[in-house]
This record gives sequence, C-alpha cells and structure tokens, in this order.
Amino acid sequence: MARLKGFQKLVPVDEALERFLHAAKFKLKKVTLRIQSALNYILAEDIIASTDLPRTDRSAVDGYAVDAEETVEASQTKPKIFELTDSKAIGKSQAKQVWTGNSLPKGANAVVMLENTKIVGNRVEVWSPTTRWENVSRRGEDIQKGEIAIEAGTRFKPQHLALAAALGVSEVKVFKKPMIAVLATGNELAELGAKLQENQIFESNGLVLSALCVELGAVPLDLGIAKDDVDEIAEKLNIGLEKADAIITSGGTSVGAPDLVPEAVNALGKPGVIAHGVAMRPGMPTALAIVRSKPIIVLPGNPVAAMLGFEVFGRPLVSKMLGLKQVESRPVLKAKITKRIATTLGRKNLVRVRVFEKNDDFLAEPVSARGSGLFSTMTKSNGYVIVPENLEGLEEGDIVLVHMFDNLGVIGEDVQKTVVA
Amino acid sequence: MARLKGFQKLVPVDEALERFLHAAKFKLKKVTLRIQSALNYILAEDIIASTDLPRTDRSAVDGYAVDAEETVEASQTKPKIFELTDSKAIGKSQAKQVWTGNSLPKGANAVVMLENTKIVGNRVEVWSPTTRWENVSRRGEDIQKGEIAIEAGTRFKPQHLALAAALGVSEVKVFKKPMIAVLATGNELAELGAKLQENQIFESNGLVLSALCVELGAVPLDLGIAKDDVDEIAEKLNIGLEKADAIITSGGTSVGAPDLVPEAVNALGKPGVIAHGVAMRPGMPTALAIVRSKPIIVLPGNPVAAMLGFEVFGRPLVSKMLGLKQVESRPVLKAKITKRIATTLGRKNLVRVRVFEKNDDFLAEPVSARGSGLFSTMTKSNGYVIVPENLEGLEEGDIVLVHMFDNLGVIGEDVQKTVVA
Repeated sequence: MARLKGFQKLVPVDEALERFLHAAKFKLKKVTLRIQSALNYILAEDIIASTDLPRTDRSAVDGYAVDAEETVEASQTKPKIFELTDSKAIGKSQAKQVWTGNSLPKGANAVVMLENTKIVGNRVEVWSPTTRWENVSRRGEDIQKGEIAIEAGTRFKPQHLALAAALGVSEVKVFKKPMIAVLATGNELAELGAKLQENQIFESNGLVLSALCVELGAVPLDLGIAKDDVDEIAEKLNIGLEKADAIITSGGTSVGAPDLVPEAVNALGKPGVIAHGVAMRPGMPTALAIVRSKPIIVLPGNPVAAMLGFEVFGRPLVSKMLGLKQVESRPVLKAKITKRIATTLGRKNLVRVRVFEKNDDFLAEPVSARGSGLFSTMTKSNGYVIVPENLEGLEEGDIVLVHMFDNLGVIGEDVQKTVVA
Repeated sequence: MARLKGFQKLVPVDEALERFLHAAKFKLKKVTLRIQSALNYILAEDIIASTDLPRTDRSAVDGYAVDAEETVEASQTKPKIFELTDSKAIGKSQAKQVWTGNSLPKGANAVVMLENTKIVGNRVEVWSPTTRWENVSRRGEDIQKGEIAIEAGTRFKPQHLALAAALGVSEVKVFKKPMIAVLATGNELAELGAKLQENQIFESNGLVLSALCVELGAVPLDLGIAKDDVDEIAEKLNIGLEKADAIITSGGTSVGAPDLVPEAVNALGKPGVIAHGVAMRPGMPTALAIVRSKPIIVLPGNPVAAMLGFEVFGRPLVSKMLGLKQVESRPVLKAKITKRIATTLGRKNLVRVRVFEKNDDFLAEPVSARGSGLFSTMTKSNGYVIVPENLEGLEEGDIVLVHMFDNLGVIGEDVQKTVVA
C-alpha cells in the first residue's frame, strides 16, 4: 500500500471514466467525403436507401425468363416449348434469355436455368418445371427504399462501402477526425536521435500514444517533451488546448516524485483535475481532467501503464470523439489461463498475456506479472485480460476474455480449418 | 451441380492457393522510414538491440540506493543510519536518493523505498532490511545487447514502436507497400455518379477490393471498369502489369456467360491461368493466374464472392507481398452456431455469421445462407466461418472459429468485466 501515499482515496475505474466522459463536452464536426476516401471514417448521418435493391426483379442465374405456370409438368421427354423474344415483355408461351443480374421482362416471374433448356431454332425447350420467383432476386429483397441502410455512428468498413455504392451513394457525411494533442513529460526524457545524458532514456510514450490515436482514427498532435517544470508543462498544455480537441500526457503524475502535470492542469482552468489516483494496476497515478471543456488524460510515465491507461481511458474517450455509436473494443476472444496469477484486490488489474493456440484451444500465458516497466513484455504479449476489483487473481484453467492488441500468430491447420467441437 | 458445367474439375482451395503462391515471384523492396512513420509497415530487417535495456541497473521506485548488506536487521526501533551523498558512487554507510528510473550509484545494489525511511538532517534512517537487487531493474533485464528485439516480417504496432524507440532506433528498414491493381469488369457496371441505364448496377467490387487492400497495408491502383470485351480487358490488365505488383479483378469469369477475363489473361503471356474453378462456395468460378511473373486473382462479380474470394486468396497473397512472416488472419474467436446450416460437401464453404454475446457466450447466427448476391448480408454479418470440404454443414451448438471482419458490437458488462468461467 506504500504507493497509495499522497492519494486520499483511489477512485474506481468505472466511476472515474463515467465522471470524465460525462463532464467532457465536444461538438463533433461533419465533413462530406467521396465514398472512396471514407474508409474507416465514422458515418455522421444514416444512409437511407433511396431505391430498392435490387432495383427490379432480376435473374439470379443465366437462363430463360418465363411465366412459371407455363412450365408445369415440363420434363425432358415432354418439354414445354417457348418462343424466344427480345422485347421488354413476354407474352403467352414466350421466353426471354437473361444473364445473371438482368431484369426480368414484364410477364415473367421465374427463370429456368440454362442447363434445363435446349435451343431449337427460334424456340427454347424447357425440360423441368419451375415455381413462381424461382431463380429470381426480388426487387427490394436486399434493401427496401426508405430503409436505413447504414446507421450513423458506424465505422465505414469495406462492406459498408459496397452497400453504399450499390445504392448509388457517391458521397457520405462523416465525422471529422478529432485531433488529440500528446505531451510527454520528464527531465529523464531525451528525444529520439539525441545523445543520451546520464539518467536519461529515449522518449517513447508520446510516440506510442500518438500511434494508438492513429490506429483508432484520430489525428495526433505532437506537443513534444516538457521538462519537469509546471510553467513549461502548462505552456505546452495551453498549445494543446488551443489547437486540439483533447490532450493525453504521460509522466509527471506519480506521488513520490513531483506531481507536476495535475498541478499544471489545475493552473489552466476549471474544473481541472476531476479524478486523480484510480483503482487500477498498472496506472494508479492516472488523472483525468477537464479544462475549457476539453478532456485531458494524465497518464503515468511507465510505458506499460501509459499504453494500458490509453486502453482504459483513451479508447472510450476517443471512440466518443470519433462519433462511434459505442466504444470500439479491441478484438476479443476467450482463452484458458495457463498459470495462476495474483492480482490486487480492490483494483482493476490489466494483465498482459500471450495468447496462442494448442490442440484446438486458445491458451493465455500471463507475461511477466512483474516488470510493468519492461518494453519487451508489450511485444511478447498480444493481449490483456481485465481482472475485476473483486478478484485476487486468476487460477490456472480459468477462461478469460482477452482484448487482443496484436495478432494471434500462426493459427494451426486444424483450428483454421474450422469446426472446433 | 449445374454451375459446374464448363469446368473440367474443381481444384481444392488449398491446392490452388499453394500452387498460386508458389508460382508467384516478387522482389520485396525495402525503404527506410523514420520510426514515427513506420506504424503498420512490415519490418524488413531484424532490429538488434545495440544496447542493454535498461542501460544500467536502475531504481524501480523512489527511495534510497544502498548496499543491501548494510540494512540487515534494520527496523523502525533500531534503524540503520546512512550518510547521504550526491556522488556517483556510495561508500561505506552511505546512501543516495534516487527516483524511479535513476541509475544506481556504484556500490549500491538495492533501493529502500521512501516509505521505509526517514530523513534526519544529512542522514537517512532505514527502517527495514532490503535484499540484494530489491527494487532494482537490472541492466539488460528487458532486452540484452545483441538480442533480436523485433524480428523482420513483424507488422509494426504501437508497442513495437515503443521498444524500438527505447532502444534508440530512430529509423527502420521496412518493406515498401506493394501496389495492387484492381479491375472491375462487366457491361452491367456503371461508375458511381453516372446515370444508370437499363440492366445496369453501380460498380462496387473495385471499391471494396481496393479498400481491403488498404486495410492490409497495400496500395490499390484503380484500373476502372472494363466492358465485356477481351481486348479492352487485356488492355487494362496490361496497364496493371506495367504499373502494379499484382492484379485483382472481379466479374467476367462465370461459365454460363462469356468467360472473358481468363481469356484476356491468357492472351497476355505465360503461364497465364494456372487454376480456374475452385472447390469453394461462394466463389467457384475464381481463377488464379501468373503473367510476367505477376500474380493475378480473377474473382467472380458477385459482391459477396468477390469479398470472400479476397479473404481466401487475396489475403495470403498480399500478406506475402507485404513481407509478413505469416499470413495475417482476421481477428478470430470461437462462437456457438445458433442454427443448423447446410453446406456443400466437397467445397470449402464460407458462411457469413453475425456474432453476438449472450449470457457470457459468443453466439454465431448464420446470415442468409441464400442471397450471396445481397449486399446487406455483408453488413449484417460481422464474420465468416470456414466449413471444410468434408462436412455437409454445421449443427446448432457447434463451436466454430469465426474470422471477424467487423466489430462484435456492445460487449456485455459481465463479459467485459472478464473472468468468464
């Protein structure tokens, strides 16, 4: 409990997050994009179908459009004979050749597949009966005019692009990407490429937090590095408040060392810090703040805590700022814990794991319970498990939900080929 | 079996893919990027640690660096007294104040936490014994000099960026993004924004295939739309062969209708089409070809077949062209099938499903076994299941591996909070 010193009381993560998201106000701006450029943007307005899809009753196969009733009892020995026509409507005992996707001529209500027919001069023999609407994609069967084809708040994936294009939508209203300013603080930090002085390390948190923003679809604004100096920190935060929609910082928030970022934040305006010290591990010294209505997430300098702090606080915030209709979680899967791991009661523990596949099972191996400062634990793991406040750990064999931040690796032939049990 | 007409024999998917990937030759080009720009690129050369990480034995806490042996039997009633020093080395009965991350002074081998000490003038009282290397991150404990920190063929994620930056790597050699030309064919296709003529639909496959390439990290080259005309198709393919590293087409490969793309491909050079007609569903008329050593994937025009065909053939090809050390699969999870679904024996069936969460379980509901031409089935589903050739379907309750191409949606509180069983 030693590190608790300085915090009156730790705020539960869910409470801190709810308070924070509730207090943060932002206006989402809309922009119009050509559909080709809209991949991964968030739709700002429902796409309403302006037409039925398919637009007409159309053939689902290559064959001959007919009136189904005229094929009753057709067989190879007693074929029904149709006169071929090229017009937009068929009359009695007429058929029209259609390719997959062609509209049905008026009067037709079924398509006989090519294979069940034979051309004889200007006529076609139909060898098997067909039923009403057989081999026909009915008008509106995919989407009906006036239906919501894609809801606002949806991330535009390739399949949404397909549907929108099919409906003839060439431009969409999407939310403008929010800009998130990123500041790294600490006297120990040297910029990449610089020569390290004694007790210095290369700055990496700013790069990672920026990359995490990019992954989600936000635009990072690099505020660089601030020394452990309240004025310098406040000055850089101020630039962030002017230019960006939110700020994420790392470092300068532990309690033993000077607690400078929260101090600088509070100097900039009201309400300032609304939660400081959260019941999670790693990441306990995290602070959440609002200044000039803009949200600020103050993460610890420890690289693992900074990255996982982004997952817990940054991801929900940025999801909301993107205009997503719900928080976009990492891909998840369930896996079996390979060995017992102790966690701290009363804290939300984020345990890094390496998920792999063995004998059709997904196994999750905890990666170094210790060493939350170790960079390699982040690249050796591919996901994390959230162990809730009311547990003291995970037992070997527990099935857990893993949030994946990297690929599973090679998926075994057997699993890849599918049916598992 | 009607649609088999025209294909001598269907090639099993795995065999077709292996033959194709084996025949396709390409030289991956390397480029040097600033690490800030390397997100999602594939590392072309191992990153070897040029230094230990941490670079020195360093403190993992805020406190006083000491020689552990001098703290034996220390207690609050009988503290051990150390003289404070600021120098780079401590002598007998000396201690030096350190913050988290500071290098240990020479002579020190442990750090006593602030909480277990008391400053008295120029001295510090240590109230509890410490052991050798307690509260110390040992030099090289994260990564040792000469170790491979990140392997070539790894996709550069935020966490890799962190590790590389921590090692002082400011530039990395990555593979140049491959360029994939995309061609849509068919008289029925109208460009988005144009006025639809009778029997026309808006082109969407080209947009989707381009977007799928972008998602994986390749650069699409839009070859536009070719009419159902061998010369026009060949002409556009020729541009693709000149400018791009591979080509993906859609349409013009069914058997009932004129089989134009394979014909155009074969006109362009040897070996041309090496597989045509694969044992999968949807996507049976797919063809794979090599011309001038460049791979060409000829997908059907059906939008679902085109997208799933990309998953089966495009994804492995593009993974290889990106330089990935293994095929990058979609995120996967296991889910329980909610209702029986029949598939075709002897084919690899790709069944679209909508995965959702209920009572701690992931359920997968098959989305419209019929209607593979329906766009909305792609946006209503969020993944697909591969049903292998030796099965005739899936039974209700089967546990299957789902490849997710969209988010799971809201994850229930209980599942989100983790431990599942």
